[in-house]
Amino acid sequence: MKVIFNPDGKTVDVPPGTSVLEAATAVGLRLNSPCGGEGICGNCRILIPQNPPPPGAADRKFISKEDLKRGLRLACQTEIVRPLTIIVPYESRALEQKILSETKEGATLLNPAISKHFFSLAPPSISDQRSDTDRIREALEAGGLSAQIPLPLLRDLAQSIRAGDFKFTAALAEKRFLAIEPGDTTNKNFGVAVDLGTTTVVGYLLDLTKGRQLAVAARTNPQVPFGDDVVSRIASVQKDPTSLDQLQSLASSCINEIIDELCQKADISSQAIYELTLVGNTTMSHLFLGINPTSIAQAPYTAVVRGAVNVRAGELGVRISPAGNIYTMPNIAGFLGGDTIGVALSSGIYQSDGIKLAVDVGTNGELLLGTSERLICCSCAAGPAFEGARIACGMRATEGAIERVRIDKDVHLSVLGGGEPVGLCGTGLVDAVAGLLDAGIIHPTGKINQREELSGLPPALQERIIPREKGNSFLLARTKGREPTADGPRARDILLTQRDVRELQLAKGAIFAGLQVLKKELGVSDDDIEELLLAGAFGNYLRPESARRIGLLPPIPSARMKFIGNAAGAGAKLVLLNKDFRQIAERLSQEIEYIELAGRSDFQQIFAEAMLFPGE
Amino acid sequence: MKVIFNPDGKTVDVPPGTSVLEAATAVGLRLNSPCGGEGICGNCRILIPQNPPPPGAADRKFISKEDLKRGLRLACQTEIVRPLTIIVPYESRALEQKILSETKEGATLLNPAISKHFFSLAPPSISDQRSDTDRIREALEAGGLSAQIPLPLLRDLAQSIRAGDFKFTAALAEKRFLAIEPGDTTNKNFGVAVDLGTTTVVGYLLDLTKGRQLAVAARTNPQVPFGDDVVSRIASVQKDPTSLDQLQSLASSCINEIIDELCQKADISSQAIYELTLVGNTTMSHLFLGINPTSIAQAPYTAVVRGAVNVRAGELGVRISPAGNIYTMPNIAGFLGGDTIGVALSSGIYQSDGIKLAVDVGTNGELLLGTSERLICCSCAAGPAFEGARIACGMRATEGAIERVRIDKDVHLSVLGGGEPVGLCGTGLVDAVAGLLDAGIIHPTGKINQREELSGLPPALQERIIPREKGNSFLLARTKGREPTADGPRARDILLTQRDVRELQLAKGAIFAGLQVLKKELGVSDDDIEELLLAGAFGNYLRPESARRIGLLPPIPSARMKFIGNAAGAGAKLVLLNKDFRQIAERLSQEIEYIELAGRSDFQQIFAEAMLFPGE
Repeated sequence: MKVIFNPDGKTVDVPPGTSVLEAATAVGLRLNSPCGGEGICGNCRILIPQNPPPPGAADRKFISKEDLKRGLRLACQTEIVRPLTIIVPYESRALEQKILSETKEGATLLNPAISKHFFSLAPPSISDQRSDTDRIREALEAGGLSAQIPLPLLRDLAQSIRAGDFKFTAALAEKRFLAIEPGDTTNKNFGVAVDLGTTTVVGYLLDLTKGRQLAVAARTNPQVPFGDDVVSRIASVQKDPTSLDQLQSLASSCINEIIDELCQKADISSQAIYELTLVGNTTMSHLFLGINPTSIAQAPYTAVVRGAVNVRAGELGVRISPAGNIYTMPNIAGFLGGDTIGVALSSGIYQSDGIKLAVDVGTNGELLLGTSERLICCSCAAGPAFEGARIACGMRATEGAIERVRIDKDVHLSVLGGGEPVGLCGTGLVDAVAGLLDAGIIHPTGKINQREELSGLPPALQERIIPREKGNSFLLARTKGREPTADGPRARDILLTQRDVRELQLAKGAIFAGLQVLKKELGVSDDDIEELLLAGAFGNYLRPESARRIGLLPPIPSARMKFIGNAAGAGAKLVLLNKDFRQIAERLSQEIEYIELAGRSDFQQIFAEAMLFPGE
Repeated sequence: MKVIFNPDGKTVDVPPGTSVLEAATAVGLRLNSPCGGEGICGNCRILIPQNPPPPGAADRKFISKEDLKRGLRLACQTEIVRPLTIIVPYESRALEQKILSETKEGATLLNPAISKHFFSLAPPSISDQRSDTDRIREALEAGGLSAQIPLPLLRDLAQSIRAGDFKFTAALAEKRFLAIEPGDTTNKNFGVAVDLGTTTVVGYLLDLTKGRQLAVAARTNPQVPFGDDVVSRIASVQKDPTSLDQLQSLASSCINEIIDELCQKADISSQAIYELTLVGNTTMSHLFLGINPTSIAQAPYTAVVRGAVNVRAGELGVRISPAGNIYTMPNIAGFLGGDTIGVALSSGIYQSDGIKLAVDVGTNGELLLGTSERLICCSCAAGPAFEGARIACGMRATEGAIERVRIDKDVHLSVLGGGEPVGLCGTGLVDAVAGLLDAGIIHPTGKINQREELSGLPPALQERIIPREKGNSFLLARTKGREPTADGPRARDILLTQRDVRELQLAKGAIFAGLQVLKKELGVSDDDIEELLLAGAFGNYLRPESARRIGLLPPIPSARMKFIGNAAGAGAKLVLLNKDFRQIAERLSQEIEYIELAGRSDFQQIFAEAMLFPGE
């Protein structure tokens, strides 16, 4: 039975009776199935748009009637009995600790900046005493190439080319030598694309001879102790200029750890990685390059560098091939960086005829609105609430995080990894507030109501409202005892506090207000927006209905919404796989119009309104 | 009274009765006058070609009748009583410890690779949030310029331009930023030209806004403990590859000391030096760049790098402006380096219609023969004898060195600094052997004859022949007691040993044989050579008659000989002052034909003959 998985376009033949989950695994697609295919977690949802098989009991348990009608099924419960075309939503893909590490790749013609060439030269003799560089230059010219050999490679050039008896492979980046290796190593040409997030760093290892992704690895950004958000990291540099060096080397060493893991997973040498492309917000890329970013945080918030920077890996302490190239994506402005260019590139919004809106919610929220004719953008200081920080029981979306909350007569939780809950991550927070708004427990102003104001409420919910001095809290879960203490595991309450709701209001208000300004600037309404593209780890796990309910996203129906995964990281891959995208990136970084919210007299008013929750 | 000093072209008006020495000092020409103008050392010889004043007693004492007729006088003894045009021979110039540090400069249009530009930019505002790099780029473009800002400058770019309130000066090298400085510093633009010799390192500080030389400094090459000549230094790298790093940093730290001295002398900051150009033989420039040179010493003796290398000063640990450029002159072959290109450039031999011969005798002897049509060259391993090394009582040409030996009925010495002799330098060695050949004490085979074979000899000379086991020695001087020992100063004999004569035969034989091969290759005889150009410190203090007598130089009359000073260093200055010379240097490094002596079957025979001294 032939099965096609979209949007990946992967095809596999399987015997009848194979489950969709098994078939997906067979082609290297890893679905989110913490229960191991038992049909009890409800995570491995796939869409069979045409003639879906009748739903089973587990399907009916986890999937709404409406969605069942659309063809949504659990992959582990669906047996293949005839050829199928299956769509795997991004939400259903298994990801390293729920960090979004897979990216949609557009149809990319492979055209990397790095090329490798094998040479077999005549050795020198007393009648041919050409220098080694002349010998190589002339061989290059014979092949229509020309390139400079930088000093670090010159230093043991004679030894390198003699080690292989004048047979060697050169790795070239445009007009520059990156490496010279004995023998023919043209089949070993790798690159790493890095998304250097304020909170999370993701690296992708790509085979530049085949355009194939070999491995993914992620880490928490070790700069976090210097501040949760970019402004506090800049402040730490301002307070103590020596921390700039520390922040730079923390970024490099984090990337080195990721590279080590990637190399181990794919069983390659880091010396065969000749280029690393990096996206990040303007502050993150400045810090990675060791550029003092203090001007970004002071009015009028200017970046030091807008354009792409190319620099030798050795200069930044990044352990790929030492003369290898590091390319950082161009920025747009002080608060809109190469990550947004990455989103613009990989989402294709820059080529769109109709109006599209791309939303990338991380510690900062970036919004892009427009068409191929005109693209405007802004940056919203959402803060780290969506990543679980500054939330009383907040945590990142790792094992033990409550990632989904449904409220009817009681509270129903879905926990990452399926075990006991440890804390609340961003999507769970949005779900919880949305559910509590529906239940009337949270007032549109954001206040958690008193128990006595909610007499009609099911008792199970009423009991969860816990009065506190600075406003009420809502009990999401009482753990049986996971918290390790000196006296053994301890039970612990997972609460949503009044302050958490306020943090969320600030975060969602910042993004929603930014969107209002962009729409006003472009003169469009929600109805004019053809497609809402949700990017980023958080965006991809967000329940659209919850996001709309709390007023984080505009009331655009799900049919016009698209999850585009780690679009910033996908942009880093695009420029790695095809250097032509670097020209587009450069053009976009100059053409995308940056709307400075701080510069608008109407912003405070819009922001104040945006902090309220929709009234129902 | 108007006085013109040539070839410098310097003019001064002085009151009648001023001495030529005083007038020279007044225009910044320092003559060699260890006696302080007392007329007792005979070193400050100048030439007054037309109507010279009658010679005085001191003139007659030190200057031969023939030379007096030509117009040679002592500068300290000649009073100016009418306008004069005076030629200052290179031999008469005062030089740091007799190291040749002044160089003839051809008429050079000033066109350095480094330019400085002052900018006054509008500061950013909320309505003009361009990044700093965009702001600078656009200002550059408005001035018809374009240049990249390398990462080290980006790092504190924001601070640099804000320090001067957006008024700053950029130092550019072609398409690259070298420095950004607050305020207008366009009048501070300096460069250093370095001649990195195997034995001696000389640096020249030039003002690139005026094309003027500000200071000169010199040091002994601190790599000497790794070997006197290039082959032994290469051997030390071959034996222990870690010594490559040591040799590199010794070269850089020696250059740094020279830079410090230059800056102190001229009272400038080393941060205002944006470029350093360097000439050296191929091994020296490889070692300075940290390039493993072992292939140079092994057949077929290939260089690793032929072309010029441009590298950031910081990468080599050279303390000029950290992003400043270092340019190393291109090489010709493994044993013919950028120093020979420097000689070719500054001597103008590459533009000559008639056949010229340039000879640069250092630890290696380099010979260039030909015209603008065809230039051929070779390298002769003379060894360090001419620099006083491997000679029993040898020393460098510093204070106390016997630099001149005249033999008639007895031995007459001239000692640098005028004090008691300490040892014998290269020119003294050549003089001594020439005089002893004339006296018949040394036989054309090189043997120092026995006292009894020389019965016709004046007794004073006979007594100086001292029989030794391994051949006779000749006593040049018996010091009164300068040698410091634990028991106080000790008298010491300065001897010329049989072995010294053999060393000299090897050295002069190597050079003379090289010349024979070149003449044979080009099909020319001595008579065809229009001009013999003597370059280098040693060449400039050599007495031509002595050099011809021992057969170091061919029998070309003095009228066709020209002393061209430190022509290699002058080449480094040329490329510093005018970047167009770099293209000529690149072309010459490819076009000059290198004749590999080791590759010729006739060389051993020619060399064996060249070791003999001419028969009278």
